[in-house]
Amino acid sequence: MIIGIVKGTVVSTQKDERLVGSKLLIINQVDADKNVIGKDAVAVDLLGAGIGEYVLVCSGSSAKSLLHNPDVPIDMAIVGIIDSMERT
Amino acid sequence: MIIGIVKGTVVSTQKDERLVGSKLLIINQVDADKNVIGKDAVAVDLLGAGIGEYVLVCSGSSAKSLLHNPDVPIDMAIVGIIDSMERT
Amino acid sequence: MIIGIVKGTVVSTQKDERLVGSKLLIINQVDADKNVIGKDAVAVDLLGAGIGEYVLVCSGSSAKSLLHNPDVPIDMAIVGIIDSMERT
Amino acid sequence: MIIGIVKGTVVSTQKDERLVGSKLLIINQVDADKNVIGKDAVAVDLLGAGIGEYVLVCSGSSAKSLLHNPDVPIDMAIVGIIDSMERT
Amino acid sequence: MIIGIVKGTVVSTQKDERLVGSKLLIINQVDADKNVIGKDAVAVDLLGAGIGEYVLVCSGSSAKSLLHNPDVPIDMAIVGIIDSMERT
Repeated sequence: MIIGIVKGTVVSTQKDERLVGSKLLIINQVDADKNVIGKDAVAVDLLGAGIGEYVLVCSGSSAKSLLHNPDVPIDMAIVGIIDSMERT
Repeated sequence: MIIGIVKGTVVSTQKDERLVGSKLLIINQVDADKNVIGKDAVAVDLLGAGIGEYVLVCSGSSAKSLLHNPDVPIDMAIVGIIDSMERT
Repeated sequence: MIIGIVKGTVVSTQKDERLVGSKLLIINQVDADKNVIGKDAVAVDLLGAGIGEYVLVCSGSSAKSLLHNPDVPIDMAIVGIIDSMERT
Repeated sequence: MIIGIVKGTVVSTQKDERLVGSKLLIINQVDADKNVIGKDAVAVDLLGAGIGEYVLVCSGSSAKSLLHNPDVPIDMAIVGIIDSMERT
Repeated sequence: MIIGIVKGTVVSTQKDERLVGSKLLIINQVDADKNVIGKDAVAVDLLGAGIGEYVLVCSGSSAKSLLHNPDVPIDMAIVGIIDSMERT
């Protein structure tokens, strides 16, 4: 997984029907010191993550597991809200 | 997912039979400020996205879900047409 | 998918038995203006693509679908021969 | 797989229920000479790897196999603790 | 797939039980002219590839197919030993 910061939202009315009701958040990858190191990407969120929060982001086909549906076309999902990180 | 802009089309007559009838669009990744940050790639489109539109693009094996077929050889699909993006 | 140009061939006698009979082509990613933008990679071809032809290349586990076999260890396949590309 | 060094830990209370009980470690990719060559990433650990240990890291949907569960949203797992590496 | 050169070995005693008995080789991606273009990575080998040999490497979840086991946590496998490459 990567560490991400929630930076914004995406609105899409005309979309695959399996994405209806899913919140779409703009994410930037950060390092453990909270420096942004990644480009804008879009993740599905079910945990209610807010702008500015640090989150754990799962990519690839594993992200489909978030929705308990092997047939949903998503490749990025927020799987945790981060309380703290400790790095040597 | 990434944010993409539709930049063009690809025509392929001789192709895997499961791709017959699929529209193939040239996509560039963009950031939330609509700056192009990615190279030309090709996505399958079922939503009728037009040149210049901003779209949500799913990559990897998750893209196969678009066609409701676990046996189709595609790795990139347009899963939404973006109405608006808001980024802090 | 990416756009590729066929640049050469690879010969491997000692290989996984499920790859026996598969043609292995060296591919370079190109943009829609046909500039090479990628490194040498190897794709399985069933369409009879020739050296110098532009092709549509599927990567990752989706490529396994080309061979109608969920148990074949390949991660790149040619899924179409490109007739034309139009990019704004 | 990549070679990684364990650099820290991530704590997340509010997370997908299938991640409850999984230890989350911050990993950096290294080369065989132990130079850090990758950015901070987060892997699930079941082997009890400690800070500073060199580990074998599996990425993508294959990482789900670690938990013997095809329905868990993880994309990075520690699959071995490295005793030694020899590189010419 | 990518073209790789075998550069070394990794020894791991404490590892996922499904990796017991698998030979782990350090691989570098090369181009068709045999220039090294990739970082150290680790692939499972069943073909008996030796140090200095050029090999065909499959990445991602497709690599699991090498072991005929959909439940093994590996993401890179040697699927062929290369006899010759020809590039225009």
